[in-house]
Amino acid sequence: MIKIKIIAMGRLTEASFNLASSEYIKRISKFFSLTVTEIKPVQISGNPGAKEIENALLSESSKIIAEIPPKAYVVAACVEGKQLSSEKFSSIIEEKSTYGYDTICFIIGSSHGLHDSVKKRSDLKLSFSEMTFPHELFRVLLLEQIYRAGEILNGGKYHK
Amino acid sequence: MIKIKIIAMGRLTEASFNLASSEYIKRISKFFSLTVTEIKPVQISGNPGAKEIENALLSESSKIIAEIPPKAYVVAACVEGKQLSSEKFSSIIEEKSTYGYDTICFIIGSSHGLHDSVKKRSDLKLSFSEMTFPHELFRVLLLEQIYRAGEILNGGKYHK
Repeated sequence: MIKIKIIAMGRLTEASFNLASSEYIKRISKFFSLTVTEIKPVQISGNPGAKEIENALLSESSKIIAEIPPKAYVVAACVEGKQLSSEKFSSIIEEKSTYGYDTICFIIGSSHGLHDSVKKRSDLKLSFSEMTFPHELFRVLLLEQIYRAGEILNGGKYHK
Repeated sequence: MIKIKIIAMGRLTEASFNLASSEYIKRISKFFSLTVTEIKPVQISGNPGAKEIENALLSESSKIIAEIPPKAYVVAACVEGKQLSSEKFSSIIEEKSTYGYDTICFIIGSSHGLHDSVKKRSDLKLSFSEMTFPHELFRVLLLEQIYRAGEILNGGKYHK
């Protein structure tokens, strides 16, 4: 069973997203061994300049990279990434587990995104939509797709 | 202020999505007059054939079309639709309110989607992602984008 690790910046502060996330984590445990690691984002001012954002993302990036397991296939969530259908997403999870990886590691940035060094370290840049969603809601979307992938790979009726 | 109407098949049965939906509806009321009309989906068997699905969607379609206000710009959510950025999505809401429409009407189908007659009645077929999401979660995504559109059009800091 391939392991899945999600590295996310910040906590889920909205009660609804927390509840949805717990529910999907419970359902995912049927299919994958999942861990979620939350990293405290760097506090920045209310109206930050480009340099302040860059410095914050850089400081976050070293903590993120330190959390990536050695034999992980790394997927960074970025709006400029590639979009996949749910079927294709599930086939990537299946495929990587036969290619010598023991973990698929998803990285979700803060509302300012991810530093370039994290994107460069990743094997796949993945986008879910041309639209922008809050990173807390994005975590729910990712968990739902991981659960759906488990259902697809195990021939369940959830995905039709 | 343009009115927004969401016509959705079925109720939100997951507590987390219900909570998230209520929260966004409250926030949206700052910007738009929003109504959500839920239509009871036709019950179909656990393993339906194509004909059974077609009949159910057709029966649902007449109830959906009857709920569309006369001067509405109609947006149907379909996986084969066009994707828009959040900015473009907000500009459509703004633009239509100056073009003689008094309502923007979004239609969300059940897990089997929407009948062709509803898609033909719509002015825009809109997709949020190449991925498939549960229709309950999709409703949360739509509400979040409507709220975000309000923030964008009013120069708020929510969208950056």
